[in-house]
Amino acid sequence: MIIDKLTTPYYAVIFSTIVSEDLDGYLETAERMEELAKEQKGYLGIESARNKIGITVSYWQTLDDIVLWKNNIEHTEARNLGREKWYKKYQLRICKVESEYGFEK
Amino acid sequence: MIIDKLTTPYYAVIFSTIVSEDLDGYLETAERMEELAKEQKGYLGIESARNKIGITVSYWQTLDDIVLWKNNIEHTEARNLGREKWYKKYQLRICKVESEYGFEK
Repeated sequence: MIIDKLTTPYYAVIFSTIVSEDLDGYLETAERMEELAKEQKGYLGIESARNKIGITVSYWQTLDDIVLWKNNIEHTEARNLGREKWYKKYQLRICKVESEYGFEK
Repeated sequence: MIIDKLTTPYYAVIFSTIVSEDLDGYLETAERMEELAKEQKGYLGIESARNKIGITVSYWQTLDDIVLWKNNIEHTEARNLGREKWYKKYQLRICKVESEYGFEK
């Protein structure tokens, strides 16, 4: 799903990943994290795609909302598991969305 | 490919797409645009993933570099073709990357 235009300024977290061979439990946890993110304060939406690499972009109202989500206990446990088992490499970027435009047929 | 840590501040363009059924010429043009982007002033890197939706994130030194790339003639022609033929819907967000961290095994 693509997230439609939101009201700037807001924040995007770009999470780019390369996964390992052992993906036991990964999909369930990724889905659970997406559900859990939706319940958090300041959550605005999430977009996700994967083939050779994975890119998940989540959108948030403020930087404080991103910190709260980062420190969520269940999220922290999932992140630890991710580092231990599922991820070979990732890069996470926190960005302020300054402008946007869309196209739809 | 995942782009490693860059020096903040810099800019990200998050381009989220839903493609149509007619993808004739799409892949070649997408690849050509990626090659062309790499030659532009201020280009820092590109990350791309696709399954249900496509997400391409390109990284740039300044907002001016993004405007120059937007106005590149060959890019403009490709964008017009994209709107006409390949894209059902897209959203493009211009963001300032404020912080980032990475993990690698």
